[in-house]
Amino acid sequence: MSQKPTRIVVVGGVAAGMSAAARARRLDERAQIIVFEKDRYVSFANCGLPYHISGDIRDREDLLVVTPDDLSRRLNLEVYTEHEVIRIDRVAKTVKVRDQRNDSVLKEHYDKLILATGATPLRPSMPGVDHPYIFTLRNIPDMDAIKAVVDAGVFSAIVVGGGYIGVEMAEALRRRGLRVDLVEQSDQIMASLDPEMSRDLAYHMESYGVHVTLGKGVREFRGEDGRVEVRLDEDDVRFADMAILAVGVRPEVKLAREAGLEIGRCGGIRVDVHMRTSDPSIYAAGDAVEVRDAITGEWTLMPLAGPANRQGRIAADHIFGRESRYRRSQGSSILKVFDMTGGGTGVSEKSLRRAGIHYRKVYVHPNGHAAYYPGTHPMHLKLLFTADSGHLLGAQAVGFDGVDKRIDVLATAIHAGMTVYDLEELELSYAPPYGSAKDPVNIAGFVAANLLRGDVTPWYAEEWPALAEQGGVLIDLRTAKEFAAWSIPGAINIPIGELRGRIDELDEYRDNGLYLYCLSGFRSYLGVRQLTQNGFKRVYNLSGGVKTFMAYHHNPLVSGRPGGPWISYAEDRAGGPGISVI
Amino acid sequence: MSQKPTRIVVVGGVAAGMSAAARARRLDERAQIIVFEKDRYVSFANCGLPYHISGDIRDREDLLVVTPDDLSRRLNLEVYTEHEVIRIDRVAKTVKVRDQRNDSVLKEHYDKLILATGATPLRPSMPGVDHPYIFTLRNIPDMDAIKAVVDAGVFSAIVVGGGYIGVEMAEALRRRGLRVDLVEQSDQIMASLDPEMSRDLAYHMESYGVHVTLGKGVREFRGEDGRVEVRLDEDDVRFADMAILAVGVRPEVKLAREAGLEIGRCGGIRVDVHMRTSDPSIYAAGDAVEVRDAITGEWTLMPLAGPANRQGRIAADHIFGRESRYRRSQGSSILKVFDMTGGGTGVSEKSLRRAGIHYRKVYVHPNGHAAYYPGTHPMHLKLLFTADSGHLLGAQAVGFDGVDKRIDVLATAIHAGMTVYDLEELELSYAPPYGSAKDPVNIAGFVAANLLRGDVTPWYAEEWPALAEQGGVLIDLRTAKEFAAWSIPGAINIPIGELRGRIDELDEYRDNGLYLYCLSGFRSYLGVRQLTQNGFKRVYNLSGGVKTFMAYHHNPLVSGRPGGPWISYAEDRAGGPGISVI
Repeated sequence: MSQKPTRIVVVGGVAAGMSAAARARRLDERAQIIVFEKDRYVSFANCGLPYHISGDIRDREDLLVVTPDDLSRRLNLEVYTEHEVIRIDRVAKTVKVRDQRNDSVLKEHYDKLILATGATPLRPSMPGVDHPYIFTLRNIPDMDAIKAVVDAGVFSAIVVGGGYIGVEMAEALRRRGLRVDLVEQSDQIMASLDPEMSRDLAYHMESYGVHVTLGKGVREFRGEDGRVEVRLDEDDVRFADMAILAVGVRPEVKLAREAGLEIGRCGGIRVDVHMRTSDPSIYAAGDAVEVRDAITGEWTLMPLAGPANRQGRIAADHIFGRESRYRRSQGSSILKVFDMTGGGTGVSEKSLRRAGIHYRKVYVHPNGHAAYYPGTHPMHLKLLFTADSGHLLGAQAVGFDGVDKRIDVLATAIHAGMTVYDLEELELSYAPPYGSAKDPVNIAGFVAANLLRGDVTPWYAEEWPALAEQGGVLIDLRTAKEFAAWSIPGAINIPIGELRGRIDELDEYRDNGLYLYCLSGFRSYLGVRQLTQNGFKRVYNLSGGVKTFMAYHHNPLVSGRPGGPWISYAEDRAGGPGISVI
Repeated sequence: MSQKPTRIVVVGGVAAGMSAAARARRLDERAQIIVFEKDRYVSFANCGLPYHISGDIRDREDLLVVTPDDLSRRLNLEVYTEHEVIRIDRVAKTVKVRDQRNDSVLKEHYDKLILATGATPLRPSMPGVDHPYIFTLRNIPDMDAIKAVVDAGVFSAIVVGGGYIGVEMAEALRRRGLRVDLVEQSDQIMASLDPEMSRDLAYHMESYGVHVTLGKGVREFRGEDGRVEVRLDEDDVRFADMAILAVGVRPEVKLAREAGLEIGRCGGIRVDVHMRTSDPSIYAAGDAVEVRDAITGEWTLMPLAGPANRQGRIAADHIFGRESRYRRSQGSSILKVFDMTGGGTGVSEKSLRRAGIHYRKVYVHPNGHAAYYPGTHPMHLKLLFTADSGHLLGAQAVGFDGVDKRIDVLATAIHAGMTVYDLEELELSYAPPYGSAKDPVNIAGFVAANLLRGDVTPWYAEEWPALAEQGGVLIDLRTAKEFAAWSIPGAINIPIGELRGRIDELDEYRDNGLYLYCLSGFRSYLGVRQLTQNGFKRVYNLSGGVKTFMAYHHNPLVSGRPGGPWISYAEDRAGGPGISVI
């Protein structure tokens, strides 16, 4: 007890920083723990900011989870707000800190330094970007500024960027009654999902009156005070009273770089498994660091709250001699889009392709809970897994009820290193208001295992129209009524109940390849089994059926693409949730 | 292809039987598959029956998932309803079947027989139990009969039994406007949970006007037509217009037993991992079989829909040469009780005690999602794990939002053989409407791992009042206001923010043992860390805090127990969901 107490300086007092400081105190009652935060607030609920603007969180104080005074009383932390750390002297082990209130500079010694400097919203250097009515959203003052403008009664907004903040802000502003344009340069919103999975989220925003434009970037901002002009690609010009710039964040590493700490190739501070930087007395955690992807092993940026909190805790643990390690990041994420939910965990298909990893995939559309119990809707659920052993690589889900649950079950399964065969056997809780005797996760497992066992060979939406052009015969196993409403061009209709009696009709196509489909893939699965056992060799089942086909091909929101086919889901027994457009 | 097709006879056409038949067809297009069902309906949604009585499921047809005609057209099954199999001749490989419509008897050959005879509601032999207004609920005709009486406008009902059906029926009848008494012989409802976890569910029923009586059994029924008299223990007599008997089910094994098949010690048909009975040509699946508990390894009955479906599928797989195996049963279960949800997975504490398995446990009360986002409530979450390695044994959760999600995540974790240390690291999806950066599952992992690492030694509600009588000093770390509202008798109040400054006051108790507590255990955790590091050796933290303490000690619904202490949750920052009584 007579040993000199450890002096810990934490730079940044939000998720990672505050988590580290609090953990440090719980581990060592005698440590001196000093937190410098350059803004006015510490430990605020940064994920809640859009929801105060929307009015969901009525009381601004609710976002200020704890005050410096709380932290002093409960945890004996010294917390200094409006204090910016401007330089690290690694030899002397000191930091230079500017008190922003009076511009004075002080120097503080550390035994261990924890950098939780976070990330900064990107503000691309383009003409007019400094217009006073163009906002970014990262902290409480940003929120206050946006809310003040909205409260003042502006009529319209343009949100640039279709990521988490962009989508949440578009919803918030729309719910406040503004006319809202969402503009996204790529051909999808929510980039952590694959494009076809994000489609319904964009349509759903449209159904709530958010005007979504995909595939167009911003070239320039213009405009006088109180009016923003946004010039997009293809000479598309939009006007609004304000704009939100939500095109992502970059790790805030200036301090670390100037101190000569190693910066990784993604631009984040490089740390080891204990969150230690290239200087063993300096740790880093949160949005400022880069992490390894759990599946691909590649370095990446994952500015997420959960990992930030864990990393802060691990840094503190290691300072006090505990061997806690930060595992690689799995990137579990979720987003509420009005009444819908979209989420993912593990790697996306596009990332697997980029990484050159061999994979297989399936799409299913199970209901969130028993179809006969009110309030459920079919979801899109996509599973990615290794081609040999069936180990899970990633999962994505989009829909209404129970989407978050399935994402978290699959996140747990991926963490555990489970295979699709394990998903078949998972014993999940069931009562009609919550699930089905065969849960969506079980069903995804069945379908994936059927693929790997060779019981069913899938075909995919993206293979069309090539496969038809190469002589493949499309067979639609839905009812005549469904077929009449819309079908894939060139398809033959044989309702599943008639297939056994009409197998002879297909004899002439025995060598062509028979590409079966139905609404979501179950009837065509039965069809594949029938035909395969009747000696047909080349029979394939459209994974995800018409639902995934439409999500893939029908994308009228993307600039420059012709509107795809159109369909009514009237025959979908589970009933439509009003999946807006398709 | 010239081989003689396999002839499969399935006895019972609901969950397990129909699952087996459908799977058999998908595996073999040529097989002859015959299903005999003694009732009028096959493949109906038996878990949905209470919800049609309540009016949630308005259309009765919605419960009839598929008709025999569908099954014939799509799957080429021969389905005979109102056909009861009355005898098996294992030597001749035939079954004798009575057509109940005309009492004729036919004989059918099988190559493979699948018994999915289900279970029968228990109807204890006691005086008056055959009263025409005493109902059980198992199938569509049962439901029709109950609904007809309710529709006719009866005013009151007594539900005997606090299991799934009892609770669901009490809710259904209450929602139809009846005065409802629920009577349960044991001291808790929902026996799959531990008693303290089930408390809030019972209170919640009371808050909706269901009169719950625990700890009293039924001795006798009496009464004239249209009026049921229920005589309970302690000469407690109740009257109602109808009664529902929901005291459990027993496996229907008459056919199997008469055929000389092995019956297990729990009274279910004994099967191997492929669902094969002691006769290799006969399989059994669903509620009629007994299974091994995944954790204890003991034989047990688990009449649940999910396992029934899987077992049917596995039986069919094995018949067609596939090596599918049924793993042991984990018993994941869930129940909606008005606005609340209660569920569990793995083993309960009482089962662990019965099995003599050494375990540890923690209670936590995290919110379903971020506290600052509207619509969330703290849940009760209990984790059971091995004392050495921290492997998960069981989990239970009761509350409002997000309970089903956490049960399923923990069910997946148990299936994967995870430890509490894995739960600390789980990377679950987070956005304010769905969770917290530290998810309830992570928090349970942290608290459990803290226990195993020796950072915090818990004490438990059940150790009181003994520990106080043995000289233990109780320290309440809540605010003075919370303390004034209610505290554990004899406790000293030191709000957590004052503890550092008042440690000297505790010096005199250094050897007594300091039993800390707060509302849910977090503030007292900080207190334990402070005191431990100040040289106090015997410092303990009440697991689950006042919330679990109340659930354990305050049980006025149990007959014969004095009402326990009373508390208002006014200081609970997350706000009350109207957790009715406590």
